[in-house]
Amino acid sequence: MLKTSWVASANSAETDFPLNNLPYGVFSVGDADLRCGVAIGDRIIDATGLEAAGILRADPDADVLDAPYWNDFMALGPKVWAAYRAKLQDLLAEGASEEVQDQLTTYSVPMSEATLHLPFKVAEYTDFYAGKHHATNVGTMFRGAENALPPNWLSIPIGYNGRASSVVVSGTDVRRPWGQLKGPDMDLPVFAPCKRFDIELEMGAIVGMPSDGPVTVQEADDMIFGYVLLNDWSARDIQAWEYQPLGPFQAKATATSLSPWIVTKAALEPFRCSTPHRERVLLPYLEEPGPMLYDIPLSVSILPENAEKPEVLARTNYREMYYSAAQQLAHHTTAGSPMNVGDLLGSGTISGPSKDERGSLLEMSWGGKEPLTLADGSTRSFIEDGDTLTLSGAAQGDGYRVGFGDCAGTVIPALDDPYKRG
Amino acid sequence: MLKTSWVASANSAETDFPLNNLPYGVFSVGDADLRCGVAIGDRIIDATGLEAAGILRADPDADVLDAPYWNDFMALGPKVWAAYRAKLQDLLAEGASEEVQDQLTTYSVPMSEATLHLPFKVAEYTDFYAGKHHATNVGTMFRGAENALPPNWLSIPIGYNGRASSVVVSGTDVRRPWGQLKGPDMDLPVFAPCKRFDIELEMGAIVGMPSDGPVTVQEADDMIFGYVLLNDWSARDIQAWEYQPLGPFQAKATATSLSPWIVTKAALEPFRCSTPHRERVLLPYLEEPGPMLYDIPLSVSILPENAEKPEVLARTNYREMYYSAAQQLAHHTTAGSPMNVGDLLGSGTISGPSKDERGSLLEMSWGGKEPLTLADGSTRSFIEDGDTLTLSGAAQGDGYRVGFGDCAGTVIPALDDPYKRG
Repeated sequence: MLKTSWVASANSAETDFPLNNLPYGVFSVGDADLRCGVAIGDRIIDATGLEAAGILRADPDADVLDAPYWNDFMALGPKVWAAYRAKLQDLLAEGASEEVQDQLTTYSVPMSEATLHLPFKVAEYTDFYAGKHHATNVGTMFRGAENALPPNWLSIPIGYNGRASSVVVSGTDVRRPWGQLKGPDMDLPVFAPCKRFDIELEMGAIVGMPSDGPVTVQEADDMIFGYVLLNDWSARDIQAWEYQPLGPFQAKATATSLSPWIVTKAALEPFRCSTPHRERVLLPYLEEPGPMLYDIPLSVSILPENAEKPEVLARTNYREMYYSAAQQLAHHTTAGSPMNVGDLLGSGTISGPSKDERGSLLEMSWGGKEPLTLADGSTRSFIEDGDTLTLSGAAQGDGYRVGFGDCAGTVIPALDDPYKRG
Repeated sequence: MLKTSWVASANSAETDFPLNNLPYGVFSVGDADLRCGVAIGDRIIDATGLEAAGILRADPDADVLDAPYWNDFMALGPKVWAAYRAKLQDLLAEGASEEVQDQLTTYSVPMSEATLHLPFKVAEYTDFYAGKHHATNVGTMFRGAENALPPNWLSIPIGYNGRASSVVVSGTDVRRPWGQLKGPDMDLPVFAPCKRFDIELEMGAIVGMPSDGPVTVQEADDMIFGYVLLNDWSARDIQAWEYQPLGPFQAKATATSLSPWIVTKAALEPFRCSTPHRERVLLPYLEEPGPMLYDIPLSVSILPENAEKPEVLARTNYREMYYSAAQQLAHHTTAGSPMNVGDLLGSGTISGPSKDERGSLLEMSWGGKEPLTLADGSTRSFIEDGDTLTLSGAAQGDGYRVGFGDCAGTVIPALDDPYKRG
């Protein structure tokens, strides 16, 4: 049920940010410093300001929000996460005193006036491949229908380490990369701008507590602070030539875009659901003790450079994943690698079973063999320069939604000469 | 030629740390704080102390060495690196005034009394696969002699992102990991301690300057601050089952050990050499404008738990690499990913052409088919619990050597139950 707030815009069934949500972000207004903020309706509460003023503090002794990221807050652990959220909900709930309302209004800005930044410092970034429909589609295209799903896929949440330095916030332009390309009919590769640039519609899980050794799936779930939408921009032609035998590298290094608000695990609790039926019994260390996926409808839309309005390309749902983020994180720790506050885990591309539920253009256009026709009559096998691709998602409650805010990026042309300076 | 120092132990032809070297590390004595230090002979100069006392400063305005890592120093860039090194060599050279000698002796400790720590904060870690003998050996074992070298190998310095949080300093024990194992004769995997735990003898290059977009090989070489020895501990049985299609993940997540001293590029200048003959013409962006490899003899030795002395298993040389670190770094930037101060690039396993020049047990024992017999009569296909594996390396000058200090780790038994707490 909708929790009502004295911030009127937070009570609309259409807002991404009702009192039930309260996601954490980082914002700035004009040239001022970056500050931690909380979204409520069409406003941002200045959490850094509330902390400095002593109105709402996570830690009595340390200014953990006096920083352009939520990492120090996350490091305080789940009890503090819960207590802070409870206090914030009290302050923003309908019925709060006029004094409180005045104070919080003072420490808030209209979202329309703010610039949003990455909400946390990404420690390390791991990307998974845990959507079965996606893995089957891609495997069929790359290796044929008989070998579509690798033999290990039903036993391991397959993942690879990504590049944390390439993570950017929604709204950041993405420059088409150069790379080594070699088509099947070429003897030798060329170095040229990518011709098959693509999106991957994913969710990102943010690690809020560190570990130092293997953790159970339950412990892993406890370590997760929240979720974001994640677009793992992918250069398919670079990937095809480079990925054997050690996996994707430069194909995934251009950018990974995140939605600007960390939606907390607490806000998503009503939407927990189980992973799908296991087609092969999992090893005990990967068994889920309870539902650890979430029912979150997702979509991806495209806005060509001169088009008037965006057009939805696909709709899918986070519950389509075969492995949850908790299972991925538990697997990630098996060999002993420490996990740190701010580690980011990409779910893997989230495709549903049908054609209009595919989370990448590679799948939608079946490797370019079945180009999409857009509303303006143009066709797409992959992304064209000037296209803006936007991921959206919101869990649907009874009279409210828990939304993420858009995860958007516009693809700008490759450099004429990547080595020309000045 | 040996540059002579008033620190007598630095003038021995046997020391790793003559005045020609001056590598950078981080040390502590007893329970005191970690400090930045410079190795000279059998002593460590307290660089943090010299900075605080105003005797030797890298930056007139900022205490960049008031930290347990050299990252802030590196960020000052090559001109400061050169000026600092020149001043340090003056202070330590034979002929320095008695006052200087007294001051520096005050700000120094015997190396034997110090504990060494990681010399820099690892931003991100990338591991390459750029040794042709190693790639050929491993490829032959995994895919047969006809498909040994992947089609892209002679065109791309193949690399994958590793896990920075798993990087440890020499001397840190390495616990045998658990993981999913599935032999060819098994229907389903089991979760069990790794049975084929291995080393990889590598060099690590440390990025000292950031970039934001593609850089040339020359620019990449300029960005490199220095080198360390690197042992990329590898769980071969975990790797065999997990690595298709997205590359190694948990097989490489247990630990990566580094030698404790950053040997600067400046100290290695006399030992520059070219990469080997190109068997396929490189794309222009990867062409080396000059010699960017180094002639550094390397070895790996084993000390079983109850053995009296270590035994050398293999000798090789960094100049065996097909691609230099500068070429790897240039390739790393092609798709636009920013590089940061403290990024670590592993060279890939360095094997030479002959059997006693192999940089991994996988190669030495040919996948376990040809176990090694050690001096104590025991045999090894892979590492046994209690074994200490040590990498050593030193460039050989005229009457001096530029050494790295050992990169050692003892493998301790796997946990009985990785999920048992307390």
